[in-house]
Amino acid sequence: LNKPFQPLNKLVIFGVGLIGGSLALALKRVMPQLHVTGMGRSGDSLQTASDLGIIDSIGTDIPFALADADIVVIAAPVAQTLPILQAIAPHLGSRTIVTDVGSTKSDVIRAAEQALGANLPRFVPAHPIAGAEQSGAAAARAELFQDKNLVLTPTADTDPEAVQQVRRMWEAAGARVQEMTAAQHDSIFAAVSHLPHLLAFALVDELASRPNAGQLFDFAASGFRDFTRIAGSSPEMWRDISLANREALLDELQAYQQALTDLMRLLQDNDGAGLQALFERASQARNNWARAREIKK
Amino acid sequence: LNKPFQPLNKLVIFGVGLIGGSLALALKRVMPQLHVTGMGRSGDSLQTASDLGIIDSIGTDIPFALADADIVVIAAPVAQTLPILQAIAPHLGSRTIVTDVGSTKSDVIRAAEQALGANLPRFVPAHPIAGAEQSGAAAARAELFQDKNLVLTPTADTDPEAVQQVRRMWEAAGARVQEMTAAQHDSIFAAVSHLPHLLAFALVDELASRPNAGQLFDFAASGFRDFTRIAGSSPEMWRDISLANREALLDELQAYQQALTDLMRLLQDNDGAGLQALFERASQARNNWARAREIKK
Repeated sequence: LNKPFQPLNKLVIFGVGLIGGSLALALKRVMPQLHVTGMGRSGDSLQTASDLGIIDSIGTDIPFALADADIVVIAAPVAQTLPILQAIAPHLGSRTIVTDVGSTKSDVIRAAEQALGANLPRFVPAHPIAGAEQSGAAAARAELFQDKNLVLTPTADTDPEAVQQVRRMWEAAGARVQEMTAAQHDSIFAAVSHLPHLLAFALVDELASRPNAGQLFDFAASGFRDFTRIAGSSPEMWRDISLANREALLDELQAYQQALTDLMRLLQDNDGAGLQALFERASQARNNWARAREIKK
Repeated sequence: LNKPFQPLNKLVIFGVGLIGGSLALALKRVMPQLHVTGMGRSGDSLQTASDLGIIDSIGTDIPFALADADIVVIAAPVAQTLPILQAIAPHLGSRTIVTDVGSTKSDVIRAAEQALGANLPRFVPAHPIAGAEQSGAAAARAELFQDKNLVLTPTADTDPEAVQQVRRMWEAAGARVQEMTAAQHDSIFAAVSHLPHLLAFALVDELASRPNAGQLFDFAASGFRDFTRIAGSSPEMWRDISLANREALLDELQAYQQALTDLMRLLQDNDGAGLQALFERASQARNNWARAREIKK
């Protein structure tokens, strides 16, 4: 940890959207010398990123873009991770570090093992926990990661020095960096992120499929609005996350079904004391969490 | 509908909290002559309401408070509805209208049938759909009901003229008044309000009960925050609502469990197209709803 941070000179970002763009802006704030090359499938969004000063150049040729790159960040939709890793693998310098920002980690590690060969030790799986309400380079902002969690999930293969470099990069962007295994990561996020998304999608789909859906939605109010906000998220992204974290999610869904069955039993039994106890445990936990989060800010 | 609105001179409100207090403020805006008497178990909160100019007098004696009252509004916690109806029944004038603001209606009608006797036709069950994030008279504001839905659920027993008076009162407070049966009301709100609350309570309780709850909550982010906001609601209130609307809620929970079982099958089958189709239906319905709601505002 006392090792001096090797200054970053060149960063290559695949996918300059909210996450990739905000990382570039955050790093440029503290590393004025940093050159950021943006790469991606959408020329329009790269041009936007360039116009906004988020990137310094638009990469069109992989070997040229990767030459002398210190770190390559893959911030494109997760379904593109494997093809991008395969495309860059033959052109990676021996010191270049590769990292990602995907919401699931075991699958990304499998993709890296499949694609990177000798460069595998320089791949550092990462997941910044920061808002997905907006998207696109135009929404990028230097403060997005300030005091937000970022999880690194290195494996036994990963070079500790590469982990250290990626940690320092995200700390420079303001994030609180933590390390855990990919399995731990995927199980935690199945519970606190992926499960709630699937529950919200399922509720809205179920209600929308009814003959009186229009009337139901007409009377939905602010509780419904907040509960279902995440059901407005990108279907493609959540298809990919669901499949990538399938096993952990199935475990979570099963545990949740059991919790609902227990709750239904309390209702069937007219067990007011049992219902109140459950609601009290939940509201205390929710309100304590919200307070702690507010204090941490 | 062309009948002139009989001007309100005296309103009695049992429970001067957010809802009762906001109704008083909204009506005083357009009826400067209106005298509002507040009644309730908490002398402190009645004093606050009086200090804030929400009520004109604090009622201590039921016969005296009810004399010449045009409308009595029961805005206390729903568990008090039956005792309040029983307490006021012997002292109601033949022209006095009684109405309530409870989140469930079939149970309130049963209570009225049990308590009101000859005054039953002058009881108009009502439910204003307005924010429960805050509570107490200090949070009351005249605009709370502006452009919000209000549902009346009169029965075959209810005097149409009493319904008309209560409709006019709520329209004067800015609400959009609709009528339906109590059964329709309770089934709609089981789906769009009570079910989401129970789902959020169940999720938070299930996660909070795990050995690694601290770690889970540490990584919960903005999606979790919004999804679980309603799990911070009053346990007593939701115990009462759950029991009052038990049958409809059990139907909803069963339908939701089936939807989750279908979703789990898609995951088990690695059915990416099926998952994406479900998420697309949900996100379109959610985003269309949010847009329509924004336009209506």
